Amino acid sequence: MTDDDRDHRERGKRGRGPALSRRSLIAGVAGAAGLGVGATAIARSADSAGASVHGGDVIEFYGEHQAGVTTPPTAHVNYIGFDLAADSERQAREALAGILRVWTEDAARLTRGAPALADSEPELARVPARLTVTVGLGPGSFTRTGLEGRRPRWLHPLPAYPIDRLDERRWPQTDLLLQICSDDPITVAHATRVLTSNVAGRIRLRWVQRGFRNARGSQDEKVTMRNLMGQVDGTVNLGPGDFDTLVWDDGGEQPWFAGGTSMVLRRIAMDLDRWQELDPASQELTVGRRLSDGAPLSGGGEHDDPDFDKLVDGLPAIPASSHIARARHRTPAEQFLRRGYNYDDPPEPGPDGVLPISNSGLLFAAYQRDVDTQFAPVQARLAEHDALNEWTTPIGSGVYAILPGARRGQALGQSLLA
Amino acid sequence: MTDDDRDHRERGKRGRGPALSRRSLIAGVAGAAGLGVGATAIARSADSAGASVHGGDVIEFYGEHQAGVTTPPTAHVNYIGFDLAADSERQAREALAGILRVWTEDAARLTRGAPALADSEPELARVPARLTVTVGLGPGSFTRTGLEGRRPRWLHPLPAYPIDRLDERRWPQTDLLLQICSDDPITVAHATRVLTSNVAGRIRLRWVQRGFRNARGSQDEKVTMRNLMGQVDGTVNLGPGDFDTLVWDDGGEQPWFAGGTSMVLRRIAMDLDRWQELDPASQELTVGRRLSDGAPLSGGGEHDDPDFDKLVDGLPAIPASSHIARARHRTPAEQFLRRGYNYDDPPEPGPDGVLPISNSGLLFAAYQRDVDTQFAPVQARLAEHDALNEWTTPIGSGVYAILPGARRGQALGQSLLA
Ligand code: HEM
Ligand code: HEM
Repeated sequence: MTDDDRDHRERGKRGRGPALSRRSLIAGVAGAAGLGVGATAIARSADSAGASVHGGDVIEFYGEHQAGVTTPPTAHVNYIGFDLAADSERQAREALAGILRVWTEDAARLTRGAPALADSEPELARVPARLTVTVGLGPGSFTRTGLEGRRPRWLHPLPAYPIDRLDERRWPQTDLLLQICSDDPITVAHATRVLTSNVAGRIRLRWVQRGFRNARGSQDEKVTMRNLMGQVDGTVNLGPGDFDTLVWDDGGEQPWFAGGTSMVLRRIAMDLDRWQELDPASQELTVGRRLSDGAPLSGGGEHDDPDFDKLVDGLPAIPASSHIARARHRTPAEQFLRRGYNYDDPPEPGPDGVLPISNSGLLFAAYQRDVDTQFAPVQARLAEHDALNEWTTPIGSGVYAILPGARRGQALGQSLLA
Repeated sequence: MTDDDRDHRERGKRGRGPALSRRSLIAGVAGAAGLGVGATAIARSADSAGASVHGGDVIEFYGEHQAGVTTPPTAHVNYIGFDLAADSERQAREALAGILRVWTEDAARLTRGAPALADSEPELARVPARLTVTVGLGPGSFTRTGLEGRRPRWLHPLPAYPIDRLDERRWPQTDLLLQICSDDPITVAHATRVLTSNVAGRIRLRWVQRGFRNARGSQDEKVTMRNLMGQVDGTVNLGPGDFDTLVWDDGGEQPWFAGGTSMVLRRIAMDLDRWQELDPASQELTVGRRLSDGAPLSGGGEHDDPDFDKLVDGLPAIPASSHIARARHRTPAEQFLRRGYNYDDPPEPGPDGVLPISNSGLLFAAYQRDVDTQFAPVQARLAEHDALNEWTTPIGSGVYAILPGARRGQALGQSLLA
């Protein structure tokens, strides 16, 4: 961070507006009282690491890879989409570099329970609760900055699928993505606010997508989450043994990108009113798994392999049109890491002023080394046919390059901008 | 619940739309698989009551008072506002009676971890995580049903305060209020969906207001929550010794209402961008308490009494214009139970299409026996002057009669409708 930057941000906190005159509030004390705040923050977050208290749990920010991809999913997420506010290539590049410096420094502090440098509410930084901050770049971050030659090949909009009803005005692809995860919703709100307002002059906010899973500790950690259709969601997924081959980039094509990955974020609305009209047996046939425990309809337990060849009364136990039959990889290369969250936003009035009963769905997030070869074939197959499509509609879509991790003392994106 | 009702609701699940034909999905199995779901629900929720697993924690629904008022605040809330969909007085009264029967039966089941009768996703009912469902009636539930004579005297809109900028289109007073609290956000989403869709024909949904506090277990239970301005919020409040005199109605005026209470729900937007411009010392003078630990500026710890007479350098340590100096009760009667939640909704585009950086504030909820004598004088004083008003703006306001609790076998509102 340059001195200029720091000045700018200190001004943000201390000098942008006039401080209230103490006298104007008919007061005296307090001069010193406000200052201790930052200093106690870290000590506090360590204090609270008591028996079953989990707010002090920290996920390391620095490293070869960014956190928030293969680290355990937390209870809450905010995905936030921004565009760069800049006219010329030079300005855009400077803005991008400045943003990444600020985010790196702030995220490194916030994730360990310390306030950001120009933290608007430093007291809210004390409970990291496994906070992760993950930064992604959309295609615009390369085209608008003159860095086109460094854009990963797969970083382009997905093909238009026949099932898509994308609301490009509301949920557009953006130049930048922040993914903020924590088990505490206050922590997510605070980190969102700090990281957004500390770069406010350089970005235009496009959307915030709020998601959730089960609360930390509400069930055994081993229990797979359910989505809002009631299904066990996340059973078949990549494991640690796959990450180096299928998730993390090895720098083979773009040396600067070694340690990064790609992310596809699909906002998929669920028509729960119509889903509810379906009897449970039909609901199960739609997915190919049991509602009660997520076991495949071919038998066994949740984690047993589905047997797509098994017949019952001469018919496949798992319909060929079911979601898992269609989604299953046809080759080992067609695999990716899923790490989605539910959403259930306040319903928004339609043009007629009438509120729909619900505004829910899945924030489907997939991470893979190569979108084109790992994710796209599966999505194309599902778009062509998937029994579940009757009740789900993609309304937002974005693709992002998740930057390689930052080593201590470096900023995210350093290898890109060097 | 009448047979008619039950039929209606069973149809909701089983017969409203055509079931998928098994053959149409080229399948066989599953006939039995869907049926075990409901039956295992309760056993599951007991299972998970392991060491630090809290999802099985249950707050009793039945009793003299409704839960969700003096029971501990959970991590998440949905406040949901509905109007009665009915033309005549007779229809409105029947609708109200039907709604209260359905909500009682569903809430009694959901709060103990069992699916509702016509539960759209019974699997999501397994983790009550201290779920409470609290039902309130707005003035319209009395005027529109011909029950005007039974309306509590204080159940009318609050006076128009000069600080108010109420958005009556977006956050109007409603005929009915549901308050749904749980430590698990999936549980809140599911209960919201079930309770709303099971009465869909009889209501018009007006709004959903989503709120949160710290996650369960992220800090020691004794730590007071913070609001999104960073302040410790909730220090001075009523305790169990006050509930019978200051919170619960004794039936003195409206015998049917014994055991009920009133609720004021104010949606108060925070201007965090401008709040952030203020230096911490001025922020503290605005409230009258320290940011670091919530202690009064007159000294001591969080729970020590503020000394409003203490002078420092000839000036009051706690400014007379500060929020706590203005909000403090002048007589013992001017007290109420505060139980608010933070909100941080996805920003909504303004008329120019530009997104504001944040859309946050406080869902201020106060419960008291009598709104006019306990709450209104304090709100009037704050509206007249409160240093905090510079950064906070009430944009929604509602008053509700929180019904007396239901005894087992009764429906909520039975004493009203008898
Ligand atoms: C709202 C939309 C969706 C819902 C409700 C949904 C739900 C599910 C469920 C319940 C399962 C079975 C349990 C599991 O293994 O996790 C599953 C599996 C899977 N889904 Fe989805 N899904 C959705 C969208 C998608 C999309 C968009 C993709 C990729 C383009 C996808 C890819 C997969 C894959 C690869 C599996 C594992 C299949 C296997 O090998 O068994 N899903 N999904
Ligand atoms: C966004 C709006 C508001 C914020 C941020 C806020 C914040 C606070 C804070 C930080 C305290 C001190 C800690 C505590 O005792 O809880 C407090 C106290 C209090 N507030 Fe508020 N408040 C707001 C609105 C209101 C409203 C609308 C009312 C009532 C009309 C109210 C009534 C009170 C009362 C009675 C106290 C305790 C005062 C005492 O006796 O010490 N507040 N509030």
